Amino acid sequence: MRVVPGDLTQPEFLEDIVAKHDVVVSMLPAFMHLPVAERCLRLGKHLITASYISSEMQSMHEAARAKGLVFVNECGVDPGIDHMSTMDILHRLRGQGAEITSYESFCGGILAPESPTNPWSYKFTWNPRNVVLAGSGGAVHFVQEGKFKHIPYHQVFRRTKFLDIPGYGRFEGYANRDSLKYQSAYGLENVGTMYRGTLRRPGFCRAWDVFVKLGATDDSYPLERVDRMTHRDFLNTFLAYHPTDRVELKLMHYLNISQDSDLMEKLEWLGLFTDELVGLEQGTPAQVLQHILMKKWTMTDADVDMLAMIHRIEYRLEGSDFHLQSSLIAKGKSADVTAMSYTVGWPVAMATRLVALDLIPERGVVMPNIPSLYEPILRELGERGIRFDERIQRR
Amino acid sequence: MRVVPGDLTQPEFLEDIVAKHDVVVSMLPAFMHLPVAERCLRLGKHLITASYISSEMQSMHEAARAKGLVFVNECGVDPGIDHMSTMDILHRLRGQGAEITSYESFCGGILAPESPTNPWSYKFTWNPRNVVLAGSGGAVHFVQEGKFKHIPYHQVFRRTKFLDIPGYGRFEGYANRDSLKYQSAYGLENVGTMYRGTLRRPGFCRAWDVFVKLGATDDSYPLERVDRMTHRDFLNTFLAYHPTDRVELKLMHYLNISQDSDLMEKLEWLGLFTDELVGLEQGTPAQVLQHILMKKWTMTDADVDMLAMIHRIEYRLEGSDFHLQSSLIAKGKSADVTAMSYTVGWPVAMATRLVALDLIPERGVVMPNIPSLYEPILRELGERGIRFDERIQRR
Repeated sequence: MRVVPGDLTQPEFLEDIVAKHDVVVSMLPAFMHLPVAERCLRLGKHLITASYISSEMQSMHEAARAKGLVFVNECGVDPGIDHMSTMDILHRLRGQGAEITSYESFCGGILAPESPTNPWSYKFTWNPRNVVLAGSGGAVHFVQEGKFKHIPYHQVFRRTKFLDIPGYGRFEGYANRDSLKYQSAYGLENVGTMYRGTLRRPGFCRAWDVFVKLGATDDSYPLERVDRMTHRDFLNTFLAYHPTDRVELKLMHYLNISQDSDLMEKLEWLGLFTDELVGLEQGTPAQVLQHILMKKWTMTDADVDMLAMIHRIEYRLEGSDFHLQSSLIAKGKSADVTAMSYTVGWPVAMATRLVALDLIPERGVVMPNIPSLYEPILRELGERGIRFDERIQRR
Repeated sequence: MRVVPGDLTQPEFLEDIVAKHDVVVSMLPAFMHLPVAERCLRLGKHLITASYISSEMQSMHEAARAKGLVFVNECGVDPGIDHMSTMDILHRLRGQGAEITSYESFCGGILAPESPTNPWSYKFTWNPRNVVLAGSGGAVHFVQEGKFKHIPYHQVFRRTKFLDIPGYGRFEGYANRDSLKYQSAYGLENVGTMYRGTLRRPGFCRAWDVFVKLGATDDSYPLERVDRMTHRDFLNTFLAYHPTDRVELKLMHYLNISQDSDLMEKLEWLGLFTDELVGLEQGTPAQVLQHILMKKWTMTDADVDMLAMIHRIEYRLEGSDFHLQSSLIAKGKSADVTAMSYTVGWPVAMATRLVALDLIPERGVVMPNIPSLYEPILRELGERGIRFDERIQRR
């Protein structure tokens, strides 16, 4: 392995580094994939990313195909392993002649039980900004029992579902914005229920909902006087003025939180009621919240992270109805090798090798819903201990 | 008076009609003022509108001034009479040497008590789309007791204030998005409290909040199968799936509404639980909601509308603190001459005469916060019965 330090925003450097290799893997922030992809297209290099296929990326499909290139995207864990494990199950069920009637899929990165006590069972193990903004920017859409359902952002964290993973206890899932996005990629255009969600430990969503209800996740306007703002001031900016009532009381009254609720414990654990300065010069509510959260939600060496994924699929086979649950747990191996890092990194590495060895016949912009990708990668992941637990019940 | 029918989106027709007059009054939808203003600028005509000054309109200020033109905007009731009456009070108080410490202003068009029974005390008397979208599109900002306050859209209708108008009973006010907008126009840059709101009868906001909480006022995405959708289906699209529970029960449970609540009566009165078809081919949630509301919230000959405006101003004078409330009630005179129409139309007409008689020395883009406009217009409005009731209390 050779590490070359440089500035990828410099066109010459980027050009040079792409030109010198056969396959380019971009683990850059998503918005930086595009200049990389453009060079790959021009210089005739294959490309691998773990990111969602943007419309700009998709627009390169025909050109990449014409040049005999494959641009593999969404090849991490979510998106990535979710696509692969879903397609593997659906392919098998369809081979048996099953008709899929309901598809639900959940994934989330949280803390493993062996981590030090944390009332949220949560720390940032992925892009903190994306966590703070999760679900924002519009309503959430899904289909259930043939009916279209829409949840406004401010209700997303109250419309949760409980799920259990054998041996790992209970989780809760909230809806992702893009539940309908993969209907065609999965061949589920006519399925009655299509739902994709994010997993947390029970209680997380109700507590996170406090921030949503306050408006503390808003990223659309700058707050005033952030340089002089304390954590407590931050909460107070979303609460009505009162000459004497404390911030705690105003919050509990506003959001109908009882004194002995675990919500208050969770907020206190984050230090939200303290007079500590935020420590930013300026920022939107979302930026200030993220900065405060990072003080407590940054992983330490003692923390062990955990990746959980659940697919719940209902199908009809030979006149009977079945319910299948397939679940995956992956835990961090060390402070450096977190579950999040290796469940994203391994599929990317495996896809890169498959592309380098010319084992992927597809060309153009693809994702791992194709057997040439998901079959070998799932097999290799299984050899490394990433295996799904599958349980089927007749209903 | 001469009525000339024609299509104002046709440049020749617009050009011709502007060219033939000395003063142009645009009562068009706000987005159509701009092409009119551009012709006025080029052809050297004064302009009057009752609409908010857009940034595009403001950008014509220097050019209009250079050509010796005056473009009077925000000269209806809200904006309009609110500016005039505010400036009249502030000018008088400042003349006495008072220091303004708090400014709150509210205005709303509702139904007068003599209208037929209506649990909302409300029908559309102004642009229905603006009513449905009121407060949406971002957080609401204001200052209270020197502290900046921010309310997310989904809480706006829960953070209301009660207000009383002598002889007319109780009202409730919810915050407008633009409370800080007129600080400089009013010379209130250093005031501790600056709040602008909309008036309704008590109970309206809690009931309207049901639509907000459901996500039914969202205008950002098209609903599915609108052509086959009933009122009841519309509600159900925002409620969780359940194989047997009724829409009514799901709604009450979701939003924590008790069975005997007046909220359910208000929703039933609107026919929201019926199996009546919406009657649109397609639409966003906000468009469908507006269409359903218009079935019940369209004024009949029996309805009498009412315009209510309240200013609450606190000030310090010679070592004492005072509270001033100035309120206005204007009622509709007939089905044609609604309160909304004449409180908007009269100030526009009066400003037009003042401009035509060259009694306004100011040039460029202005609003009626200038004495040359508000003094004669308030005097003339008073002669027509539009008078504020003012009460001052030492605190």
